[in-house]
Amino acid sequence: MINSAVTKVDSEALKFIADGGAILGSGGGGDPYVGRLMTQQVLGNEGFVSVIDVDELPDDALILPIAMMGAPTVMLEKFSSGEEIPKLVSMMERFMGKKVAAILCIEAGGLNSTIPFIAASKMNLPIVDGDAMGRAFPELQMVTFTLGGIQATPMAMMDEKGNGATFDTMNNSWAEKLARALTIEMGGAAMVSLYPVTAKQCRDYLIRSSLTKAHRIGQIMADQGANACSALAEEFNGVHLFQGRVRDVERVSEGGFARGTVKLEGLGDFINREIVLSFQNEFLVAREGDAILATTPDLITLMDAFTGEAVTTELVKYGLPVNVLGLPCDPIWRSEEALKIVGPRYFKLDYDYKPI
Amino acid sequence: MINSAVTKVDSEALKFIADGGAILGSGGGGDPYVGRLMTQQVLGNEGFVSVIDVDELPDDALILPIAMMGAPTVMLEKFSSGEEIPKLVSMMERFMGKKVAAILCIEAGGLNSTIPFIAASKMNLPIVDGDAMGRAFPELQMVTFTLGGIQATPMAMMDEKGNGATFDTMNNSWAEKLARALTIEMGGAAMVSLYPVTAKQCRDYLIRSSLTKAHRIGQIMADQGANACSALAEEFNGVHLFQGRVRDVERVSEGGFARGTVKLEGLGDFINREIVLSFQNEFLVAREGDAILATTPDLITLMDAFTGEAVTTELVKYGLPVNVLGLPCDPIWRSEEALKIVGPRYFKLDYDYKPI
Repeated sequence: MINSAVTKVDSEALKFIADGGAILGSGGGGDPYVGRLMTQQVLGNEGFVSVIDVDELPDDALILPIAMMGAPTVMLEKFSSGEEIPKLVSMMERFMGKKVAAILCIEAGGLNSTIPFIAASKMNLPIVDGDAMGRAFPELQMVTFTLGGIQATPMAMMDEKGNGATFDTMNNSWAEKLARALTIEMGGAAMVSLYPVTAKQCRDYLIRSSLTKAHRIGQIMADQGANACSALAEEFNGVHLFQGRVRDVERVSEGGFARGTVKLEGLGDFINREIVLSFQNEFLVAREGDAILATTPDLITLMDAFTGEAVTTELVKYGLPVNVLGLPCDPIWRSEEALKIVGPRYFKLDYDYKPI
Repeated sequence: MINSAVTKVDSEALKFIADGGAILGSGGGGDPYVGRLMTQQVLGNEGFVSVIDVDELPDDALILPIAMMGAPTVMLEKFSSGEEIPKLVSMMERFMGKKVAAILCIEAGGLNSTIPFIAASKMNLPIVDGDAMGRAFPELQMVTFTLGGIQATPMAMMDEKGNGATFDTMNNSWAEKLARALTIEMGGAAMVSLYPVTAKQCRDYLIRSSLTKAHRIGQIMADQGANACSALAEEFNGVHLFQGRVRDVERVSEGGFARGTVKLEGLGDFINREIVLSFQNEFLVAREGDAILATTPDLITLMDAFTGEAVTTELVKYGLPVNVLGLPCDPIWRSEEALKIVGPRYFKLDYDYKPI
């Protein structure tokens, strides 16, 4: 699926996208194993989805992002059959009085780079190569579309039991507030569609080619295994921040989020050093004493030191040896305006953003 | 507005309906003073709304109930301009793909018998004489429509800031659960439209003429003042249960409800006696020691001993002398099936319903 305007993505390509998406997910965006199982179930061995560039679509074409919202710890246990997705899309079409032309990922992640393929497959629609974060972020207003003044609503939400809701709010913070409350009530996770956008709006604000990038990352992981961290740092201008063993994990589910810290004790080249990572669904910061190694909106990802697979915040556990990869975020996040919504201070962390 | 198929209700008639509705509200359904202010503002001195019998409408006519949902204590402080009501109605029309033919009260109460008149006035629609409780109940599945297997959803909700949501749930308990969570997030109270019904469905399950009844009660109150309690007991087969002074009020706002107890010390004929009332938005039970004087679904209403006005659960306060009126509920609530959703045991009270 590289360097081509239209590409067919099958279950095999989706394995790479799930694995690579989980690296871009920065600890969030869902577990790639679950993403692969869900899409395999829908696509089977023969099925495929067409991935297109947004420039293939006319200006007024309606593009619908689909994602799973909630605490990743819950998503692991609330396995969706994908049956709610066509209902979700039709709720949005009815609300907007317009047919959907293509599906989009709102963020990168093991689940959120793959679930939209279920929607595309079930609705027989293409999927646009790109997303609105270039990584995963914990709150729904943290998308490039917000920088363009695009509203999160109309938004639709549906749980696996068949309960649905739509929202039409004053601003994206209210959409986050109301949708988060309902996600909690629905059991901690729900399928959502939000930020319905036109192709024109995507041309201005989409982070392009992120599916291609996730796919490429997945391929490198398959080739390099335990060495993937260094290989990815090299190919994508990142930094191999640390190698260590997980010495402590603190984790709470509160306000619909998974929050906590992870302590790592250095191994190999990093022996006798110690770092601490904080997360809210995604990793927010990696610190060594008072020094900041990397901080949001740059990407901080843990990778299993033996397999090279991404270790999401809900799966990180005591004793695991990991590499810590830092990748630069998309340049759109580095403006002063953007840092107000995704920088360290938004998360009540008391320091400025220092690019990787 | 008595004994006539179509009647014009103006601000003056609405005063009686608000006062009488508050009696039927059994301590809930909102404050009649607020209801009068809100409708006066919309109707002015000249405006009126047509009240019709449901038999005036064809079988498939769409009838839309409108109400305020949430804790009455909050409604007192979140005063609505009524501006959100046309948006609410149009959300429902868009959701259902059908025009609304008439407005309906879902319950009786100082606010919920009057707010629908704002909708009717603003949308230039008639209002149907009846409701789906014959009183007020705290939870949204506690309507006669539930007995008829009619779904609460599509349901729409809107706050005074302009945030809106619609729901489409599996059953009425899920509608209650999700809508209650969002009501809390919206600040504790919101305007809702739910149980969209056809005239045919109303013919089977509506509690008829409750606006006429509220109006009649309001007239008796205006005529009788301090003696209204006995007069109402006589006219509507009720019981003057008690007269006393409020000695203690315990009140908490929890889970989106106003819950608590009121202790009364006897006066006049009831001297040296003491009763305790428990409430969840509405009064649920009146007890004297172990003896049950009255219990849900029968109506228990406090009336100011001097003015005869209804005292809602959010306004009852230490020192106030009150009469306690018990009225029989509509016969539809006395079946075994109905008592499962509105009887004492639903509210975790450990005794059976004993009709007044």
